[in-house]
Amino acid sequence: MDIEQILAAADKCRAALRRGDPADRAAWLEAVAAALDGASAELIALAGTETHLPAPRLTGELRRTTFQARLFAGGLRSGELLPVRRDAADPDWGMGPRPDLRRTVVPIGPVLVFAASNFPFAFSVFGGDTVSALAAGCPVVVKAHPGHPELSRRTAAVVTEALRGAGAPDGTFALIEGIEPSLTALRDPRIRAAAFTGSTAGGRQLFDIAASRPDPIPFYGELGSVNPVVVTPAAWAERGAAIAEGWVGSLTLGAGQFCTKPGIVLVPDPDAFLAAVDLPAPGRMLTNGIREGFADAAGRVAELPGVRVAAQGPANDEGVRAGVLRADAADLLADPRALEIEMFGPAGLVVGYSSPEELIGVLHRLPGQLTGTVQAHSTQTDPVAQQAVDALTDTAGRIIVNDWPTGVTVSGAQHHGGPYPATTAPTTTSVGLSAITRFQRPVVYQGAPASVLPPELRDR
Amino acid sequence: MDIEQILAAADKCRAALRRGDPADRAAWLEAVAAALDGASAELIALAGTETHLPAPRLTGELRRTTFQARLFAGGLRSGELLPVRRDAADPDWGMGPRPDLRRTVVPIGPVLVFAASNFPFAFSVFGGDTVSALAAGCPVVVKAHPGHPELSRRTAAVVTEALRGAGAPDGTFALIEGIEPSLTALRDPRIRAAAFTGSTAGGRQLFDIAASRPDPIPFYGELGSVNPVVVTPAAWAERGAAIAEGWVGSLTLGAGQFCTKPGIVLVPDPDAFLAAVDLPAPGRMLTNGIREGFADAAGRVAELPGVRVAAQGPANDEGVRAGVLRADAADLLADPRALEIEMFGPAGLVVGYSSPEELIGVLHRLPGQLTGTVQAHSTQTDPVAQQAVDALTDTAGRIIVNDWPTGVTVSGAQHHGGPYPATTAPTTTSVGLSAITRFQRPVVYQGAPASVLPPELRDR
Repeated sequence: MDIEQILAAADKCRAALRRGDPADRAAWLEAVAAALDGASAELIALAGTETHLPAPRLTGELRRTTFQARLFAGGLRSGELLPVRRDAADPDWGMGPRPDLRRTVVPIGPVLVFAASNFPFAFSVFGGDTVSALAAGCPVVVKAHPGHPELSRRTAAVVTEALRGAGAPDGTFALIEGIEPSLTALRDPRIRAAAFTGSTAGGRQLFDIAASRPDPIPFYGELGSVNPVVVTPAAWAERGAAIAEGWVGSLTLGAGQFCTKPGIVLVPDPDAFLAAVDLPAPGRMLTNGIREGFADAAGRVAELPGVRVAAQGPANDEGVRAGVLRADAADLLADPRALEIEMFGPAGLVVGYSSPEELIGVLHRLPGQLTGTVQAHSTQTDPVAQQAVDALTDTAGRIIVNDWPTGVTVSGAQHHGGPYPATTAPTTTSVGLSAITRFQRPVVYQGAPASVLPPELRDR
Repeated sequence: MDIEQILAAADKCRAALRRGDPADRAAWLEAVAAALDGASAELIALAGTETHLPAPRLTGELRRTTFQARLFAGGLRSGELLPVRRDAADPDWGMGPRPDLRRTVVPIGPVLVFAASNFPFAFSVFGGDTVSALAAGCPVVVKAHPGHPELSRRTAAVVTEALRGAGAPDGTFALIEGIEPSLTALRDPRIRAAAFTGSTAGGRQLFDIAASRPDPIPFYGELGSVNPVVVTPAAWAERGAAIAEGWVGSLTLGAGQFCTKPGIVLVPDPDAFLAAVDLPAPGRMLTNGIREGFADAAGRVAELPGVRVAAQGPANDEGVRAGVLRADAADLLADPRALEIEMFGPAGLVVGYSSPEELIGVLHRLPGQLTGTVQAHSTQTDPVAQQAVDALTDTAGRIIVNDWPTGVTVSGAQHHGGPYPATTAPTTTSVGLSAITRFQRPVVYQGAPASVLPPELRDR
């Protein structure tokens, strides 16, 4: 099918999906999860070939992906994901008589999802954006990431077949490839929202298109984040070497190709911290483009005033090395650009601070972040940790204490978002059950009899 | 203070407001409500002079305004407006061990509010946008509407004094005037969100500025809506003349200067409907600019193919007449432009339909709406009403049955929003308690000890 046929099909089934039983949508998600589990050996092998990610990681990621689909299915069945609210008619309401009001949520309409490169299952064809949009009752058009084209096609075939087998209407799901068709879709009035996970530059271009339509639509972009880590003096004194080791592990996991990679660590004693850093050879990068972008970003940071290369690890088989840069907080207070450049890959910046005031000053210079991490004393009250958590609360969507930001749980309370450039929609999340609200539009019915109300709003 | 001082003061108190006790914010809102009640005679007189709205309307609107502030205060005290969610650590979580996650909401930061012309209290200096942003803990900078400058200044003085007396920090609230300072503020990185109620053209210009910032911010614009009304054949047969009378009342209320004015009515027998229409002389328009804009819009609609002027009422003392235009559904299906032009003032379009299919076809051509109204049979199941409600659900944020869209209750279940151009943020509302979510940003804490958690997330 060409893009016009795909958009027409999505639009055509829109009303049927809205009117459909949420339990049916739950069954669709569960059918896809089962089908992906059934095809796991084939899919994981294909993913390994195209992304160079190791099998254990891909196995865990696929488990996460099908778990996520079933979690949303469960939320549909329980009603948790379909909030309704009723205000009964009240002749004595303080501003004047109140009519009967019953509010529900309806799907926003067909959604365009831009798949990410770095999670070929969990943020790709049937990742969190697709699942939350389908759970909301929206037809979904996914633009495949070119980093794993065969996996995208094969995943889409499994999804399409499972949806059809479970009774979903034609048009509920489609895969497209290539930039031009995706831009055609993004500009099309039948597309009512878009979601994206990727770079700040690419995401911003798409955001600008969505915002400049004759009818602007919500664009939920998860873009860039350097994910600062604060090591307090008390934590440093307690377990400095273990923190350095933990940081290197989180920094180099998946060759540093995570949205939540802890790219900056603020420490009270940078020389001792660096002495404890032991960099491994990284895994292979996802694509040549990401490898080149990583080298470029790391090179730009290294050339900033006050920044220098402090350590490099051994090369992997494509010549990529993990690296650590170093600067002092005073330099970043004078020129904060190093706080704004995401090095998407296995590199990080160690920043020495000489006082809590300097530390907090740097935190206040950070742009919006997905995460902020504080390594605090494990048992004692730690005043610097309190200050750092407070400062990060103005900047980040998730604040981690005595753990690492990579590895984002999918659950009800999870929040994966933050002020720009972490996202383009700072009140929303792209991970966890609340991700569905991005694709739900409230509708309230005033004085409506049961015969015209949707089922969930009728009196029991 | 100049705009730089105002923005600096808002930014300076931002963290204090975030850390503050929500009960204190509730007390601020209540103090302002009491102060506005205390100044009501003076404010209502001033509003009458500047807006030409009658005293009973203004009295009711001020009551609504202070009621609204107290409703948000109550929601803060009860905790309803500050949702928290906890996922306890779970080693057996299906995708792998889950850490302890505790999510709360924090204020998004300083908010710029563009006051509306047509509700000099309820959507102006201390209207719903200001109250919901303050309730969220955001400093607010209000751009006064030039249609009621003295009232804006006097209201701001009452608000400022009451906030100070109740202990709110300096910078919590400020009034600015003029387009240039407001654009400076909209572009300033210290402003983190903006809200607007007004015309589609003006709101779109501001939306474009917010979206094109180096760091785009949410822009909550409530723009244009023609608010269609469907009269079903069964309702027409039951009480046609009463419906025509009710429509004229809602159409001409406040000289038709409501966002929810029912500007289009679809009827099965337009000749008989028009025969039952009796137009009064309208009240005086709010401003000369609105009067001219109204004449221009009505003139443009009247010149469209198939549209003609069907009735005009007597002139008011400024020469403005209420008017009714007429078209047939077949004409609008061929050229839907008349469905897209809001005539902000006392004019409406009567559209005759010859079949339910034609009716539903017209409803599907409508752009996003704040409201859709269906006049259905009052006791019998009405299949056309069912179809119309279903079609309007794809288009409108509030669907009213056997009542009129003007007069929007402020309550928990209320929703005042809709797809573009009704709003620029279709998942949000600008009326009702949920309006606060526009200004709340979720933050989740992972593995954090009580000593660094905000109070609401600590174990009891």
